[in-house]
Amino acid sequence: MSTVPEPSADLLSRAGAVRLAAVDLGQTDDGQRASALQAMADALTEHAETIVAANCEDLERSAAEGLAPALMARLKLDHSKLAAAIDGVRKVASLRDPLGRCDLQRELDAGLALERVTVPLGVVGVIFEARPDAVMQIASLAIRAGNGALLKGGSEARCTNEAVMAALQAGLARSSISPNALTLLTTRQESLALLRLDGLVDLIIPRGSNELVRFIQDNTRIPVLGHADGICHLYVDSAASVEKAVRVAVDSKSQYPAACNAIETLLLHRSIAEPFLAAAIPAFTAAGVTLRGDAESRALGVTEAAAEEDWSTEYLDLILAVKVVDDLPAATEHIRRYGSRHTEVILTEDAAVAERFLASVDSAGVYHNCSSRFADGFRYGFGAEVGISTQTLPPRGPVGLEGLVTYRYRLRGDGHIAADYASGSRSFTHIDKTP
Amino acid sequence: MSTVPEPSADLLSRAGAVRLAAVDLGQTDDGQRASALQAMADALTEHAETIVAANCEDLERSAAEGLAPALMARLKLDHSKLAAAIDGVRKVASLRDPLGRCDLQRELDAGLALERVTVPLGVVGVIFEARPDAVMQIASLAIRAGNGALLKGGSEARCTNEAVMAALQAGLARSSISPNALTLLTTRQESLALLRLDGLVDLIIPRGSNELVRFIQDNTRIPVLGHADGICHLYVDSAASVEKAVRVAVDSKSQYPAACNAIETLLLHRSIAEPFLAAAIPAFTAAGVTLRGDAESRALGVTEAAAEEDWSTEYLDLILAVKVVDDLPAATEHIRRYGSRHTEVILTEDAAVAERFLASVDSAGVYHNCSSRFADGFRYGFGAEVGISTQTLPPRGPVGLEGLVTYRYRLRGDGHIAADYASGSRSFTHIDKTP
Repeated sequence: MSTVPEPSADLLSRAGAVRLAAVDLGQTDDGQRASALQAMADALTEHAETIVAANCEDLERSAAEGLAPALMARLKLDHSKLAAAIDGVRKVASLRDPLGRCDLQRELDAGLALERVTVPLGVVGVIFEARPDAVMQIASLAIRAGNGALLKGGSEARCTNEAVMAALQAGLARSSISPNALTLLTTRQESLALLRLDGLVDLIIPRGSNELVRFIQDNTRIPVLGHADGICHLYVDSAASVEKAVRVAVDSKSQYPAACNAIETLLLHRSIAEPFLAAAIPAFTAAGVTLRGDAESRALGVTEAAAEEDWSTEYLDLILAVKVVDDLPAATEHIRRYGSRHTEVILTEDAAVAERFLASVDSAGVYHNCSSRFADGFRYGFGAEVGISTQTLPPRGPVGLEGLVTYRYRLRGDGHIAADYASGSRSFTHIDKTP
Repeated sequence: MSTVPEPSADLLSRAGAVRLAAVDLGQTDDGQRASALQAMADALTEHAETIVAANCEDLERSAAEGLAPALMARLKLDHSKLAAAIDGVRKVASLRDPLGRCDLQRELDAGLALERVTVPLGVVGVIFEARPDAVMQIASLAIRAGNGALLKGGSEARCTNEAVMAALQAGLARSSISPNALTLLTTRQESLALLRLDGLVDLIIPRGSNELVRFIQDNTRIPVLGHADGICHLYVDSAASVEKAVRVAVDSKSQYPAACNAIETLLLHRSIAEPFLAAAIPAFTAAGVTLRGDAESRALGVTEAAAEEDWSTEYLDLILAVKVVDDLPAATEHIRRYGSRHTEVILTEDAAVAERFLASVDSAGVYHNCSSRFADGFRYGFGAEVGISTQTLPPRGPVGLEGLVTYRYRLRGDGHIAADYASGSRSFTHIDKTP
């Protein structure tokens, strides 16, 4: 951890203030948190001119510094993108309260009642790259779920992020929630020192490159909501409908190739490879997709050759690796070896084969006859998402509000002591109640 | 990570075999896993003589090496302790299947059905200290939940652990589950290299000292089921029943002081401190408990003085720190500052005060009018536990079978593509079904 600096006194003091504000925030009710989000949205609307002007400043500076056009587009926050982000804050306000849900109620003995109830995580630390709308989205999710948040955005967006944060805090100041519940980290030193705030920060959410995520995982004791590569596969079974398979494969690759839920590898059952490729090659060409195939698929018309590293590359581009396999076990073995456990798809009209695939492939999402692009919090109906987790442990896949809560056991008795159960003078009943 | 060696070829090969066995294990049904546990229990019974003889060898060697008496007692596995452990394996076999539970079923659109279903984690790595019955408990929990496991026990117990593992694998060999699903690591090098098996191991469960847990957290990217100190508090409110409070406090401290769920600090509301201590001091003395108090409690009869470090010390012994506080907020602030978020108790006859405590103290367990010693998987009715987590993220508190599972999203369609929803030609319905 030699590269990670000790937190400065200023950072410790601000993080401590977030923690204290989060303690009070954790005891607010649904209505108070929803109103606070509406106040945040109102303040963003009132501050719109300032925010857009700050964004222009960031855009000018970044253009002068030669920022790539794709990143310039992500950085831009005009009135229409800001209005959409403000709508997003109001949408999060309207989501069902994730707190206070009771999923276990059990009588341990007469008069000794156990329950498990959802509570906020506490404080989340979020490190994200250029997009300034992330500040609004993440801050609103954090507050809705009763959490404080430390946010660190990309330096390209620093003026925008500061203007947005000023508006969010102005909104909170008019609500029952302390503006201290949110703070913006502005320097690289601070974002590194964040990794050392165990005890003050309960979860780190990195939204950025794989390198960023790995660096964070290697340098903190705080749990990290991890997102590794999205190396998603689509397997065309011998019993697939070729027409359906082509349509779903093209959508899975090209509907938005820069997304982590786009496919990177196409696996073809040998017996369907020829008719599938005959229909798919023109369709992929029309969509601007370059195919890179193994020897068998090249013999069937794929022109470029795939090398070993293609099977483990996340292109994030209009490139797709193609491989012919013997059967379902060969396909699932390839996925097990090269996949990142994000989302995998089977195309088949054979329901039994589909169920075998869904049971044996251990990815966050396993799909039958539909596009990998559905792996998304909005599409799943979560209203918003903090990210997509490729970790094995929950929260897994697209993570909405429920990824920002934990639970607590409450036990209520009337003088019950353990010695009575150890001696056998009393015994547990363990009767479940309907929560 | 310089102190952590690269895994040897042998370890990689054995861990790979566990992973492969776990893939098949993950697709077994409830009955197959329950039967495998019965076969493991049968084999342990058949191998009882060998296991007890191996344990005698460990005991003799450890006695010659001067192992402390308390650790000798933990190391000992005689016929009666073995029989109890075998009963434990059969108990785990009888627990409700944690796999295949569906907690979300949602129609995203006509013919596009999402569900979230529990699945095994995959492979768990468990590092534990002297107690050889841990091998049986953890192996049975892992297999019951469909997971492979790499186990590393203390070197004192190496002969016992090997004999137990041989029996468990002999049992599995007679079941539908591969004996490769379990493996025992025997050297310190192997247990260190385990930390580098990301991709092969999904969760590390350390059962040992805080130093062990911290070392592991600092040296692995694999998620760790963390157990830090158990610095549990009991707060006696002004409206407490003194008789009840004394009884619960004595039980919480002395019923088994070496446990993490025993209390370490007693917080007393100023207005009840005098009558409480008048009754409690003789009771604690009778139970062999030494009190260490702040100035106010010493003025009321506590003889030893507490220093600043007492508030953050896990004694694991018959010692209890005592502090007089102004009110409930002062008590919760002390807990926030010094606690380890394990389990905290309030004694009061005022229900409103109790609810404030239960809402504002963020520990895995918050208790009203009962002993902290109930924080235990068996007492909660989980049948068995892999440990108690003091992490904020789930699984939190006593962790049973449900801590060894994760979930997977399954999406079934009929050629559905994302482009249709992006273009607006179709839209999501998001209709929840009852799981």
